[in-house]
Order: sequence, then C-alpha cells, then structure tokens
Amino acid sequence: MTPEEKKNHYHKIRMERKKAQIDASIARADSEKGLLLVITGNGKGKSTSAFGMVARALGHGQKVGVCQFIKSRTDTGEEAFFKAQPNCEWHVLGDGFTWETQNRDQDIATSERGWAIASNMLQDPSYDLVVLDELTYLLSYDYLDKDLVLNTISERPGMQHVVVTGRSALDELRELADTVSEIKDEKHAYTSGIKAQKGIDF
Amino acid sequence: MTPEEKKNHYHKIRMERKKAQIDASIARADSEKGLLLVITGNGKGKSTSAFGMVARALGHGQKVGVCQFIKSRTDTGEEAFFKAQPNCEWHVLGDGFTWETQNRDQDIATSERGWAIASNMLQDPSYDLVVLDELTYLLSYDYLDKDLVLNTISERPGMQHVVVTGRSALDELRELADTVSEIKDEKHAYTSGIKAQKGIDF
Repeated sequence: MTPEEKKNHYHKIRMERKKAQIDASIARADSEKGLLLVITGNGKGKSTSAFGMVARALGHGQKVGVCQFIKSRTDTGEEAFFKAQPNCEWHVLGDGFTWETQNRDQDIATSERGWAIASNMLQDPSYDLVVLDELTYLLSYDYLDKDLVLNTISERPGMQHVVVTGRSALDELRELADTVSEIKDEKHAYTSGIKAQKGIDF
Repeated sequence: MTPEEKKNHYHKIRMERKKAQIDASIARADSEKGLLLVITGNGKGKSTSAFGMVARALGHGQKVGVCQFIKSRTDTGEEAFFKAQPNCEWHVLGDGFTWETQNRDQDIATSERGWAIASNMLQDPSYDLVVLDELTYLLSYDYLDKDLVLNTISERPGMQHVVVTGRSALDELRELADTVSEIKDEKHAYTSGIKAQKGIDF
C-alpha cells in the first residue's frame, strides 16, 4: 500500500469502530420527555445558544415563549427578529443589570412581575419550549423564592422543554437539569478594545 | 437599620462599584471591525449558538450566509426556519459525520466542494455574517488545506463577521480568532437514555 492508501485504510477501520460505538449509544437512548437545559458559565453565547434553539423549535412548527429577565433594551436583533415570527411570544421583563438599577427593592418587584408571566407559560402545555433568559441572576441575588421557581419548573407539562441561561447557576438548578452546559471564554474581543457590535453582541 | 435595610444599603454600595468598573471597560472598548468567533469544546450548543447569532444579525437587517460542512440531514428545524427567511443563504454541504461515510477520499471531495461555496461568501462584502458550521473537523482531519482556509478567513472583507464551530479547533485558528468560547457539558440528557429531540437537538 502507498502511504496515502494506508492512511485511508486505517481511517476506515477507526471510523467503523467509532460508528459502532455511536450507534450503540443512540440505540440505548430511546425515551422522550421535556428537558430542562441549563446554559451557564462566564463565557459569551449562553443566551445566543438559547435563541438558536428557539429558531430550531419554530422550524418544527412548535410554539415558543421567551422571557428575558434582566435585559431592558428593546433594540436587540433577536427581539426584532423573533417578535416578527408567528408562534413566538417574546417578553423583555428586566430593568437592566442589577448594577444599573442599584436598587434591590425595585429589582425584586421587577423580578416578581416577570415571574408571573413565566409561570403562566410553565403551566400552559401549548408551549413546546420556554426560554428563561438570565433567570439564574434572580436566584443567585435572591430576588425570587428558589423553591417556588424550582417547583414550578418541576411541575411543568411533561413534554415541555425549558432552557435557563445565566452565570452562576445554583447547584439545585443544575441537579434538576437534564443537560448542563458551561460556556467559558478563552479569549474575548471585548478585552482587546473591540466594542459590542450589532448582529454579534445584541 | 433593620437587617433588610442593611442588605439593601450594602447591595447599593456593591452595585455602584460594579457599575463604575463595567462602565470603564465599555468606554475603553471603542473600535469596530469584523470579528472571527470560534465556538469549540465538547459540549452541546456550539452550532446552536451560531444560529442564535444568525437570528440576531437578520433582526438588524444584515445578510447572512451559513455553510454546514458535516451535516447531511436536511430535516432540521434550523434549516427549515432560516431557509424561509429573506437575507439568509443556507447550504447543507456534508455527507454526514466522518464515521458515517468511512471514506476519506469521498470526505475530501465533499469538503472541497463545500469550501468553494464558503470561500465565495468570504470574498463577498455583501455578507455581514458568515457561519462556517463544523469547519473545525475539516481542518483537524486534514480534509482541507489549513493555510488556504486561514488565509481566506484573514483576507475577508473588513467588516464581515465569521463564526466557526466544531470540536478541537486548531491552535492556529484560536490564535487568529477575536473571541474563542469553549462549551463543555457538565451533564447531558443523552447519557441518561433520553434521545435527540425535535426543537432541542435538531
């Protein structure tokens, strides 16, 4: 065999083995249920990843609800885009980050108003996917009652998927979750003087 | 002060300090340019995060091109959804994962056909955002010439953003990137017997 033929030969053997392993794990995974996905960590792309799932779900004709708990700006590309889609309910429920308001009582009142809307979605089986964007901060700053939130999520309709995003997800939330992804930045444009840009950052 | 007033008082002080720090770093970040973002790691949500950026860019009226290099299935929610949007060019360019085809020559030919399309987008300033989904595998399996790919990305129009996704991003690609995010799974539904589900996984 020439070196190139050899490379192809061993490639085929490795790939056959890999396929057998992957097929076996797919065969073992055979149940369906509504999932709780938590996307956390200090890196860029947590909300963005949730918005990708929104697109995916809408593409399958599913109904989606999105609650943005912290964000107050209403000029984002995601909001403009998804609000225009049928089957997508989008709520901007925040007053800005907690270091913008600097007022804990106000943050708590805002959080409770937002939670009332989220909680309705979590009791409505017509929503296939509910995104609770930046909910983690409302738990880590103790703005919402942790048990109330976790119980409402646990008791949601059986086939409803929920995605929670934000830094510092509580241990209890991670435990309840089916999938937990941690995003970390190895490198960020921000730190080399590049400002937040349309289409990428908002 | 009551304990509650105390909590609010110190909260305010901490948040004032935090706001000052954040405002200062935003003030320092003042330049705009097309970014190269690499989303890598073994966790779930790399492509999904790129699709969130697609939504965001479309929401700002930008033009987007997406090349999916590995995927061959054409029944995904993301494709159905984004193909129906104006301003979005979507190409599924793969034959399936390399362990599905088990044929290195075929993979190389497919990669080259796909790259021709991507490379046109990377030379066309009318695209504001180009997503090269799962491009990393074509580099780590040596299906495409690394220098050709990195040079084409480097020489793209100045304001064009590029997102590259996939596991095991090469060091040279990480170096070239403005932002590198690493996604890792802490926990995945897959491993507890839950199968891939519409709206979440495809």
